[in-house]
Amino acid sequence: MKSIYSRFFILLPWILIVIIVIDIDTKRLSVRNTASFYLSRLGNVQQRQVVRTTRTSSSSTTATSSRSNATSLPVIYAITPTYSRAVQKAELTRLANTFRQVPQFHWIVVEDSNSHTELVSRFLARSGLRYTHLNVFTPRRFKRTGMPRATEQRNLALGWLRGHRSSKDTGVVFFADDDNTYSLELFEEMRSTRRVSVWPVGLVGGRRYERPLVEKGKVVGWYTGWKADRPFAIDMAGFAVNLQVILSNPRALFKRRGAKPGMQESDFLKQITKVEDLEPKAKNCTQVLVWHTRTEKVNLGNEPKRQQDSVYIEV
Amino acid sequence: MKSIYSRFFILLPWILIVIIVIDIDTKRLSVRNTASFYLSRLGNVQQRQVVRTTRTSSSSTTATSSRSNATSLPVIYAITPTYSRAVQKAELTRLANTFRQVPQFHWIVVEDSNSHTELVSRFLARSGLRYTHLNVFTPRRFKRTGMPRATEQRNLALGWLRGHRSSKDTGVVFFADDDNTYSLELFEEMRSTRRVSVWPVGLVGGRRYERPLVEKGKVVGWYTGWKADRPFAIDMAGFAVNLQVILSNPRALFKRRGAKPGMQESDFLKQITKVEDLEPKAKNCTQVLVWHTRTEKVNLGNEPKRQQDSVYIEV
Repeated sequence: MKSIYSRFFILLPWILIVIIVIDIDTKRLSVRNTASFYLSRLGNVQQRQVVRTTRTSSSSTTATSSRSNATSLPVIYAITPTYSRAVQKAELTRLANTFRQVPQFHWIVVEDSNSHTELVSRFLARSGLRYTHLNVFTPRRFKRTGMPRATEQRNLALGWLRGHRSSKDTGVVFFADDDNTYSLELFEEMRSTRRVSVWPVGLVGGRRYERPLVEKGKVVGWYTGWKADRPFAIDMAGFAVNLQVILSNPRALFKRRGAKPGMQESDFLKQITKVEDLEPKAKNCTQVLVWHTRTEKVNLGNEPKRQQDSVYIEV
Repeated sequence: MKSIYSRFFILLPWILIVIIVIDIDTKRLSVRNTASFYLSRLGNVQQRQVVRTTRTSSSSTTATSSRSNATSLPVIYAITPTYSRAVQKAELTRLANTFRQVPQFHWIVVEDSNSHTELVSRFLARSGLRYTHLNVFTPRRFKRTGMPRATEQRNLALGWLRGHRSSKDTGVVFFADDDNTYSLELFEEMRSTRRVSVWPVGLVGGRRYERPLVEKGKVVGWYTGWKADRPFAIDMAGFAVNLQVILSNPRALFKRRGAKPGMQESDFLKQITKVEDLEPKAKNCTQVLVWHTRTEKVNLGNEPKRQQDSVYIEV
């Protein structure tokens, strides 16, 4: 009897260690994120309290009122696929500068890489934002012009939400590419999304803007200069989805097979909604609150082939 | 002997678990500490929003009200030349999103136009920032490739500072072009500028970065891949000047006459300082905190020649 008792105490902790290690491995989360995930399960309030107590140090009344509102606000989950390139840190810097001002915000950053890069890991840890850092490498055969981009990254983020959020969580899911420009008003508009909401996007489709056409509060068509026959003639930055819609449609994903150029958004949206059910935001889709900006590729023609500087500097 | 052996195997895994948990916790703490830098800025944003609600639209009133609010921090005057184009509002939006988190900040926006445009006026009024809105039209003969850009706009801003600030005011002047990317740390670095400070700039001169080379706290040369013979081989985003230096050198301006491509910065700086007097920032010029990003020109090929939409929408 005593020997069974002691064996149990020898085996139990080893089993626990194995479970923790396997869990870290399979979820491909950094130790940091796994930790905050576990700790948030133990006491979900703890993480929020860190954010809130820091904010409380501001003496303004706005801070106080937004703090008391904060817990009742649905969380905005912004899914940002990203990949290594000269301007990557610059892009992430200005994105973070915007997102830092959005209350109840959770950034899901998905790298197109075989592992977390040091640059992105360090950047996120110092960002001051609540975040989840994921990665999945896009197979080379999918990296051709005309092929949809970031499919694997967006799907991994959707999978993470389905694995880590439940019917008790309130939230809104938005696909925030890393080179677009976002106004703060956009996030206030999308926060009230009940199922799927839509709004205009600037500088897209060869026009100043594209937008859903709205009559009597319903979407009845699309103002676009490009592929007007798309079921949802909308850019990735032009819609948000309630978290519960993502969870209750567990098979809704971005498609690789049979995906035609420019059809990613339509292929995804038709799995979860109909045009007549869309919720128009931004004053019945008459305001541009997000812009499909593109950053120029950097000319590195004068970069020396071998490092000439005496120190290594991250850019 | 056997009992020591079994006790060891009982204790070892528990110790391991404790170590893992402590490790997770300290990593979380270090993230909290770096995050608090940014989160403290969130407080500033909200404070500023209060200021916005209590002020009128005139920039001079704003300046006065926040001077009474004054802390001991020198004001950062960021001079931003801007001009009408498809991406203008998008660029200004992400700039404002960054600047809103910088305490004691005053934005001097100078339009290349014959009068204030409605777009920029409305944008600034809604920005929540302390600002001064100026305009001056660049004569057409200066709008050729190879000619320095935004000379008239920067000089008008310098003139405004000389006319509206005195020896009693503490401040730092910085030239913030509207398409670059700025980290918040950059502004903390430049705030202590006593005369003229310098730091590296990312993605410029055909290289990953350019930077002043520093030995024993003094600038002794330049790491650059382009026009290495420039007296100050530095981008417009790579330096800041104490307000009193601007005021005590009333004739220091950006030059049109005899200006050679890429010499704007050198021509200006040699009027107010010497290389050996420059103050290196950003850890002796080994950190990139600002990036010379460029936004792609927008393709508006599908824009209808006559307005087709039922409403006019600002983009």
